[in-house]
Amino acid sequence: MEAVIITIGDELIYGHTIDTNSRFIALRLSGMGIRTRRIVSIGDTEEEILDALRDAWQRVQIIIVTGGLGITHDDITRSVISRFRADFPGTGLIESAIDNEIGSAQGILLRLEDKCLSVLPGVPFEMKTMFERGVEPLLRQIVPAFFIRHKFLRTASVRESDLYHMLDNLPRITGLGSLAFLPGPEGVSLRITVQSDSEIDARDKLHRAVELIRGKIGPHIFGEDDETLAQVVGAMLKQRGLKIAVAESCTGGLIASRLTDVPGSSDYFERGLVVYGNQSKSDLLGVPPSHIAGFGAVSPEVAVDMAVGIRNISGADVGLSTTGIAGPAGGSPGKPVGLVYIGLADRHGTEVHRQLFTRDRLTNKSRFAQGALDRVRKRLVFLDQPSARDGFDR
Amino acid sequence: MEAVIITIGDELIYGHTIDTNSRFIALRLSGMGIRTRRIVSIGDTEEEILDALRDAWQRVQIIIVTGGLGITHDDITRSVISRFRADFPGTGLIESAIDNEIGSAQGILLRLEDKCLSVLPGVPFEMKTMFERGVEPLLRQIVPAFFIRHKFLRTASVRESDLYHMLDNLPRITGLGSLAFLPGPEGVSLRITVQSDSEIDARDKLHRAVELIRGKIGPHIFGEDDETLAQVVGAMLKQRGLKIAVAESCTGGLIASRLTDVPGSSDYFERGLVVYGNQSKSDLLGVPPSHIAGFGAVSPEVAVDMAVGIRNISGADVGLSTTGIAGPAGGSPGKPVGLVYIGLADRHGTEVHRQLFTRDRLTNKSRFAQGALDRVRKRLVFLDQPSARDGFDR
Repeated sequence: MEAVIITIGDELIYGHTIDTNSRFIALRLSGMGIRTRRIVSIGDTEEEILDALRDAWQRVQIIIVTGGLGITHDDITRSVISRFRADFPGTGLIESAIDNEIGSAQGILLRLEDKCLSVLPGVPFEMKTMFERGVEPLLRQIVPAFFIRHKFLRTASVRESDLYHMLDNLPRITGLGSLAFLPGPEGVSLRITVQSDSEIDARDKLHRAVELIRGKIGPHIFGEDDETLAQVVGAMLKQRGLKIAVAESCTGGLIASRLTDVPGSSDYFERGLVVYGNQSKSDLLGVPPSHIAGFGAVSPEVAVDMAVGIRNISGADVGLSTTGIAGPAGGSPGKPVGLVYIGLADRHGTEVHRQLFTRDRLTNKSRFAQGALDRVRKRLVFLDQPSARDGFDR
Repeated sequence: MEAVIITIGDELIYGHTIDTNSRFIALRLSGMGIRTRRIVSIGDTEEEILDALRDAWQRVQIIIVTGGLGITHDDITRSVISRFRADFPGTGLIESAIDNEIGSAQGILLRLEDKCLSVLPGVPFEMKTMFERGVEPLLRQIVPAFFIRHKFLRTASVRESDLYHMLDNLPRITGLGSLAFLPGPEGVSLRITVQSDSEIDARDKLHRAVELIRGKIGPHIFGEDDETLAQVVGAMLKQRGLKIAVAESCTGGLIASRLTDVPGSSDYFERGLVVYGNQSKSDLLGVPPSHIAGFGAVSPEVAVDMAVGIRNISGADVGLSTTGIAGPAGGSPGKPVGLVYIGLADRHGTEVHRQLFTRDRLTNKSRFAQGALDRVRKRLVFLDQPSARDGFDR
């Protein structure tokens, strides 16, 4: 079954507002097995609205309209709907209202045989509630049982091309559903999509596809769906009763900010230092000036010094550091823009990792921060294996 | 003149990606006086794309298509365009390429008499560059002179309702153009829109409207259009040869991260401390434990202690601090969620400010950080007045 989504508002066609309503609706329709055939945005113009309604009515069974309802728009929409109804004299077209429990503007529902048109307000919060309570239950009755299920698997410190090579069993996943690679400033996500006419079967296929992928790249997956890396790392630290302290150069406070985006982060995060200049690295963290002069501020040696330094002065269990070149300036042939060293210190010892990205400043900062947090996650996972600590403790 | 924007991609009609390309294009068209009549999003389906192209060609003179071009999509689009061309045998339809200087997929341009259709890749960065270099100059030739001009005035630490009351001359602004209030996590912006069939007249109207508004709320405006507060504060510090250091509690590193988002920020930002716990406030900044116990960590006294402390230990010219309650937990009747104290110390003395927001954690963090940076801006502006420093220096 197919749908058309129509979003109304001059602010949309002027480009002043990004249309997020259609995304919400498309996602929900997709979850019911309804394919959105097109999304159309138009201005607050009666003729345009009527034209879009008529066109959509020819194409599909389900039409969802948002916007053009409300205190200032009521007249336009009522008038358009009344003109649209006039297309169907004596056909048994039924009009009813969709309750709005949290706002003032009621929605409108038109039904004729197997077709259904609903009009909702454009205010996202009202629209969502009315869609869930007034539209979705009706669609469930109309739509034959068909289930599409998605799962997002999140990674933070591995390249798309490397993931692709690790997943050499793509054809087997494809047998269950489809797989998409979605790179972004927070890392690369994988989207798995399966479909079936049985909910249990869809769930089972999704489960098997996820297991297949986890079998290949499990250690790189930090979470699923809406989980953030800072949430995952925070929960792991809390569960283990560990505290973390960070010393940031190139990430400039972004790691601390992401950690403290999570409610309750004070349980495991007590302090962070943004040591942007060389002087502050020595003053605050005890990085030997000779290391900075000899190896450079962006070097594995200084990354380790910083991680050890922040751990020592804070008394935290885990010390994490970054030093790198976010760009756009400051790169050199040996140390290009996008290079970062990540240092890690805990009671078992130290680690340092080199990563290279080639993006703009803000994307580099974001990837650096994610890479550093992912190192903490991988370290904690590693230490969970009993054998991992052999010969380490001291 | 009117346009239709068509964005292509299964990810759009599934609701997995928000379409930001159409917003960019609609804004740019609007700036040239071209009205976007509709925005249509469709999937990667040959028949749908062809249908949308034919429909748009009937409706308007200008069609801009994004997406459906690239390594994996090339065949579909080439094939659709070749089928579309077949609609116009012997009509003199001209096809040419649009150069892509930063990516692999070239764009396509079709022209027939006064109609023009351009196909650009969906990758936003490539699309924008190609639109500006390959499409906009052509449209400028086609479109009759009509000019819409916008100006955004940015504020960071004043409430929408307060701005509204200060702007009691709204009718006079309305005589020149229109004014919209746009609140967001970075503060409240004002959008002024004017239009004219003469570019000089449009520019003049915009200038007069901006002057009218600046006359009422000038001190609250930190910048225009795409300027960020961190850029503005950074430039002011640099110009004055001043360095800043920050001590953040509730903002958790976000102020430092915003300051270091700006290329070249190492000129004026040397270090920041994220002192999330009470112990770190005393250890690192010398905040007397008796102040924390007596006044509470979230208090004007501790905010001042923190600002003085970070200034002293860093040797920076300006010390900036935040202490507050971002939420969702941790509030009390006397100190509710959304409360922040901002401390400022420089060689002339100290300041402390109380602000109260009532949003979710991430919005509060963002408003707190903006409020703090805006205090630095206002302080520097204040100190520029010769009389401001009388009796201050010591």
